[in-house]
Amino acid sequence: MVIKPRVLTPGPTALLPEAALAQAAASMHHRTDAFIELFKQVREGLKHLFQTRRDVLMFSASGTGGLEACVVNLVRPGDEVICVNAGKFGERWTKMNRTFGAKVHELKLADGQAVSVSAVKQALDQAPQCRAVFVQGSESSTATVHPVREIAALVRERPQCVICVDAITWIGAHEVRTDDWGLDLVVCGSQKALAMPPGLAFVSISEKAERLMQGVSTPRYYFDFAREAKAQKEFQTAFTPAISLVAALAASLAWVRQMGVENLWRNAAVLASMTREAMKAIGLEIFSQAPSDSVTAVCAPAALGSGKIIKRMKERHGAIIADGQDDLKNRVFRLAHLGYYDYMEALGLIGALEDVLLGLGHSFESGKALAAAQAQYRKLTATH
Amino acid sequence: MVIKPRVLTPGPTALLPEAALAQAAASMHHRTDAFIELFKQVREGLKHLFQTRRDVLMFSASGTGGLEACVVNLVRPGDEVICVNAGKFGERWTKMNRTFGAKVHELKLADGQAVSVSAVKQALDQAPQCRAVFVQGSESSTATVHPVREIAALVRERPQCVICVDAITWIGAHEVRTDDWGLDLVVCGSQKALAMPPGLAFVSISEKAERLMQGVSTPRYYFDFAREAKAQKEFQTAFTPAISLVAALAASLAWVRQMGVENLWRNAAVLASMTREAMKAIGLEIFSQAPSDSVTAVCAPAALGSGKIIKRMKERHGAIIADGQDDLKNRVFRLAHLGYYDYMEALGLIGALEDVLLGLGHSFESGKALAAAQAQYRKLTATH
Repeated sequence: MVIKPRVLTPGPTALLPEAALAQAAASMHHRTDAFIELFKQVREGLKHLFQTRRDVLMFSASGTGGLEACVVNLVRPGDEVICVNAGKFGERWTKMNRTFGAKVHELKLADGQAVSVSAVKQALDQAPQCRAVFVQGSESSTATVHPVREIAALVRERPQCVICVDAITWIGAHEVRTDDWGLDLVVCGSQKALAMPPGLAFVSISEKAERLMQGVSTPRYYFDFAREAKAQKEFQTAFTPAISLVAALAASLAWVRQMGVENLWRNAAVLASMTREAMKAIGLEIFSQAPSDSVTAVCAPAALGSGKIIKRMKERHGAIIADGQDDLKNRVFRLAHLGYYDYMEALGLIGALEDVLLGLGHSFESGKALAAAQAQYRKLTATH
Repeated sequence: MVIKPRVLTPGPTALLPEAALAQAAASMHHRTDAFIELFKQVREGLKHLFQTRRDVLMFSASGTGGLEACVVNLVRPGDEVICVNAGKFGERWTKMNRTFGAKVHELKLADGQAVSVSAVKQALDQAPQCRAVFVQGSESSTATVHPVREIAALVRERPQCVICVDAITWIGAHEVRTDDWGLDLVVCGSQKALAMPPGLAFVSISEKAERLMQGVSTPRYYFDFAREAKAQKEFQTAFTPAISLVAALAASLAWVRQMGVENLWRNAAVLASMTREAMKAIGLEIFSQAPSDSVTAVCAPAALGSGKIIKRMKERHGAIIADGQDDLKNRVFRLAHLGYYDYMEALGLIGALEDVLLGLGHSFESGKALAAAQAQYRKLTATH
């Protein structure tokens, strides 16, 4: 049988063909007018994606590089910070801040729980010197969203504190309004909703954050915001950029711009909702208490475990879906909905999951998940 | 919403990524060792695809060019030939033969009917001087297969007659054994099961056909078999070949070779069977009395017509499916299963069709077509 390989994980995601082609065709030197022209487009596109009038910096690095850049430019040894830790990526904020000498107040949550606004408020009240709140927009390890907009409102009232958002799987899948919501540091990566390969990280920086970062002397070289900002205002990067990825990025951002970022949010919301209804219809539980639209974590039937399901999905249908991480390994499987992903593909995935689950002996009425997904899609897109 | 454009017609079909990339990367001159190396691979791959030990000629032309090549190399003005006409492409055999002066005995069939072996036998008995039987392997306008193997057995007994098969949507979707079945002239095109762009035609020629064609003086230049055979034995073409398409062809043939052509046949058979069961499950009739595995023609509900269905499929889901041709326009829609097409994509298409039909007011239980398709898939691929 013909099996098309499909990457259906919360990153890397399926490539936008225009981005793949632009990447393949890119052959230029970065200290040229051609690159300057390309990078001008990129900088405009990033503003639309982030919904900001401020500049967005680009680094040739994975998303984690973008996170580290925030910490090293903002946090001084001994600074008090609050880190929301609701999974693998929240844990990363904690570890990273400790690595650079911060005193971390960790808000540790059970897997699948979102932080409450009141818990953050309490932590802020107990640490009036707090330099920053570090949080995920979407914690993709547990497929959970945090109430970032509300947390930002709390932080906005505190002149010496900023909010720093890991928005890597949040931007382009959820409504994100950097300026309107007062998000100070926002980090994104290339291989998520932008539907392009990994290798680029993006960071937007508010005026307030810029002010607070002045004089911070935490050692940094590659990830120095001031150096990059100076170069990027001239449509250059401080160090050799990943040129082919910048070409892909320009194509992806043009695609987002053309449809409007709101449509990308809506797409993920509709496909995620379809997927959740589909899973519930065949008796599977959604793991998160505050489900993300970028990725859905589904509890595997206890008798099976997620490992078998994932293995069989790959063998039988060529689709790569994600296992749970750490403690959640073999307990949940994760289905992504972000980026270049559509209704027909979502149905294909749900149908293939039915096939795999039935084959493994999980009992339900065949076609039920698909019918539920279709019904939800019709409900959410009703024009007829 | 994100909508991925999909070509789900019986040609052009979705591109194999490896072929698309090879096409994009190809940059060579054709009178070089590099081209010779490429063309050696192509010639081996075509033998596997056609299941022949004989050479297969390649022309830079559409499939129709390959059909014409057969006529002009074989048929002398005044020759009697039998043409099976069960649709648009059978009609083409008839017109083409008449254009070059043949006396055509046309076996005209109602749309959706396959020719019977006895009808061909009778025609052969009534025309003992008959030079050739022209037939489609798969008549894609009505999604019908003819009993070509059995017709070939009749022709084999007649030393002065050959069978000439339009196998354009037949090869790679149905079992085709050129040598074992004694198929004399077999024509294929690049944009069908090979999952590459249009622009190349392939013709296999039996020893018997080669013998009969000696001395045929029907005017021809570009499509002269003898000239091409001479050049292609030296791994060259007589005229400038479509170089980028030859590079794509090499990639497609490598893919076929790797999985084995039998798996490509089986893939189409399974997906076609799924599709037929899905359509029947929601009360839609399969048009053909002898359905092809490369494409399925489905009767549109009379109240709707196929035009509306096709338009809405494109608008709402980005999928291009085919209308009926000529008299069948607005009566049937056609769904292809050949080439680089898999289970998840088939489910996506069936689900999208359900969505479109429900939206247009055709009434059935949502999800029923999908469940039928899944059940048929499980039945045909049962390993669990």
